[in-house]
Amino acid sequence: MSLPRIAIDAMGGDEGVRVMIDGAALARRRHDRFKFLLVGDETRIKAALETHPNLRASSEILHTEGVISGEDKPSQALRRAKGTSMGRAIEAVKLGHAGAAVSAGNTGALMAIAKLSLRTMPGIDRPALAALLPTLGDNDVVMLDLGANTECDSRNLVQFAIMGAAYARVATGREQPRVRLLNIGSEEIKGTDEVRDAAAILRAAADLSMSFDGFTEADKICRGDVDVVVTDGFSGNVALKAVEGTARFVADLLKRGFSSSLRSKIGFLISKPATELLKHHLDPNNHNGAVFLGLNGIVVKSHGSANAAGVANAVAVTARLLEENVTERIIADLARVGGSNLRKPRKVPGVQEERA
Amino acid sequence: MSLPRIAIDAMGGDEGVRVMIDGAALARRRHDRFKFLLVGDETRIKAALETHPNLRASSEILHTEGVISGEDKPSQALRRAKGTSMGRAIEAVKLGHAGAAVSAGNTGALMAIAKLSLRTMPGIDRPALAALLPTLGDNDVVMLDLGANTECDSRNLVQFAIMGAAYARVATGREQPRVRLLNIGSEEIKGTDEVRDAAAILRAAADLSMSFDGFTEADKICRGDVDVVVTDGFSGNVALKAVEGTARFVADLLKRGFSSSLRSKIGFLISKPATELLKHHLDPNNHNGAVFLGLNGIVVKSHGSANAAGVANAVAVTARLLEENVTERIIADLARVGGSNLRKPRKVPGVQEERA
Repeated sequence: MSLPRIAIDAMGGDEGVRVMIDGAALARRRHDRFKFLLVGDETRIKAALETHPNLRASSEILHTEGVISGEDKPSQALRRAKGTSMGRAIEAVKLGHAGAAVSAGNTGALMAIAKLSLRTMPGIDRPALAALLPTLGDNDVVMLDLGANTECDSRNLVQFAIMGAAYARVATGREQPRVRLLNIGSEEIKGTDEVRDAAAILRAAADLSMSFDGFTEADKICRGDVDVVVTDGFSGNVALKAVEGTARFVADLLKRGFSSSLRSKIGFLISKPATELLKHHLDPNNHNGAVFLGLNGIVVKSHGSANAAGVANAVAVTARLLEENVTERIIADLARVGGSNLRKPRKVPGVQEERA
Repeated sequence: MSLPRIAIDAMGGDEGVRVMIDGAALARRRHDRFKFLLVGDETRIKAALETHPNLRASSEILHTEGVISGEDKPSQALRRAKGTSMGRAIEAVKLGHAGAAVSAGNTGALMAIAKLSLRTMPGIDRPALAALLPTLGDNDVVMLDLGANTECDSRNLVQFAIMGAAYARVATGREQPRVRLLNIGSEEIKGTDEVRDAAAILRAAADLSMSFDGFTEADKICRGDVDVVVTDGFSGNVALKAVEGTARFVADLLKRGFSSSLRSKIGFLISKPATELLKHHLDPNNHNGAVFLGLNGIVVKSHGSANAAGVANAVAVTARLLEENVTERIIADLARVGGSNLRKPRKVPGVQEERA
């Protein structure tokens, strides 16, 4: 059985080609049936491949000269995309030369190029950025949108819920993932019109392959009793970054406390299992790999500052989504629901349409 | 010199009268020039006062029968307010019998009653809920709005910035507090129209008694390099709760790690200074007391589940705001800026006006 290839934008990210190639090589060990298309500067990719004969054997290199920079605005990136590693990696997905693309480059540019090139699935108005966050339970929680859409109407949120549930079925194996909308209270009267309308639609809809449980607040995302948390890109980005920032804040405080006395230093050494558990749960590399859901093809964003283990995680997420055919699953879910099941909400004025 | 009294809604909160009275007694030790008006069931207040002769000596009791419950919707609370401890505590501020009111009751009800009774200051369209969060720096950071206004236009955000800066001057002693707007990126093109417009107004305005530094992302709130973070009530509430939830998540993980082996248990005991530091920084009781800014009078919300130390913190925040005349300061700042300085932004459609 031949699995689709994974295209890697080898030039994106703060850490350069080597980290991307090291990460792909690490991921290949766990997903050794996959082939790779490594897109970027051929000389540098070849140099990085020297220590990875197995990856080299299962890869093809697509040479490009151009690179999308962190400073490129989405509009500039769209104009420049053609000859760049990011543009060609996504184009490979469009042309069927790869099943998915992974990039650690500029998120706004990646989103814009992916949307224009791959287009949204039938039934989806806007793609969303989804990631897995750690929980106190057995499974991670899928959260979306994490910043692709600054403002969302209820229809967008409902579509995000369907896409998030499909992802959670892959990630957790749970057939009816527990889905909640992020809100500032659990009562039905709380929140914006968009959030309340989306809840009403999801409550009324049948056949959604999910268990819709109403609202959740941001302090309960990681408790492990919800599989999908749905929100607009502004709040989702704020929540995600608040979680990351607090985790770092705590790590810094702990470091400060532990280094304040010899006694603490000894305590630190002895209590390593506790702090290692913490490190494992809080290290963003262990949760790297955010997926643009809702496009005709899979595009995964690796964090710009991820290390090789982080890149490997992003590639593993990609492999998993390909193995489980998440794109086809979402299309099937949408077709089954058929839009007709989803009461069309009134138009929300003031919502700024994104154009890519 | 006689300081205005502090009215305490003795009936609000999950923990009952005793915690409110114990908290007020604790706070009185540090702020012993203040007098108190204890509002609620006289018999129970008197019983709780038995162990606190000093507080009893500096308090008057205002007996009320009714209590606003956690389930009362704001509209119900407004109708029922008259005979309740919450309603009478706020009324005392309105009538000048107290300078400020503290309640651990239902936030929505408190907001509605306070707005209707005290009205917003001249120059303020909507009050905002502000709190102090811990940072890695020397001072706490003021964050607002934390949930009073689900949606805000740029004019609201600008007013929040002015109010937050006045609070930060009191809390940090810094004459020109560093103010930033919460956004999902630091570039000027990021975020909603409202956030970008507010930034443009704040950049253009002179004489604001603040140093406006543009945008901040939610992972940088607690770094200690910003004194005021301004956002709408939805995002602010999400950010605050994400921080609280992550702190609890980490504490739970640590507990799990430490209890997993004898070695860890010993490590835990030895490393107590580190975990105590963490506990001190992360215990919400140490940061209890959110202020409704922008009303003609000070109303402070204590967390419903706060313990006596938490209530004492909320009362201490109140005392500080009274001592430093924060209401007068905000009025003076607004008068100096004079509205004329703030370019009137275009109306944002779709923003739902709150009516109290």
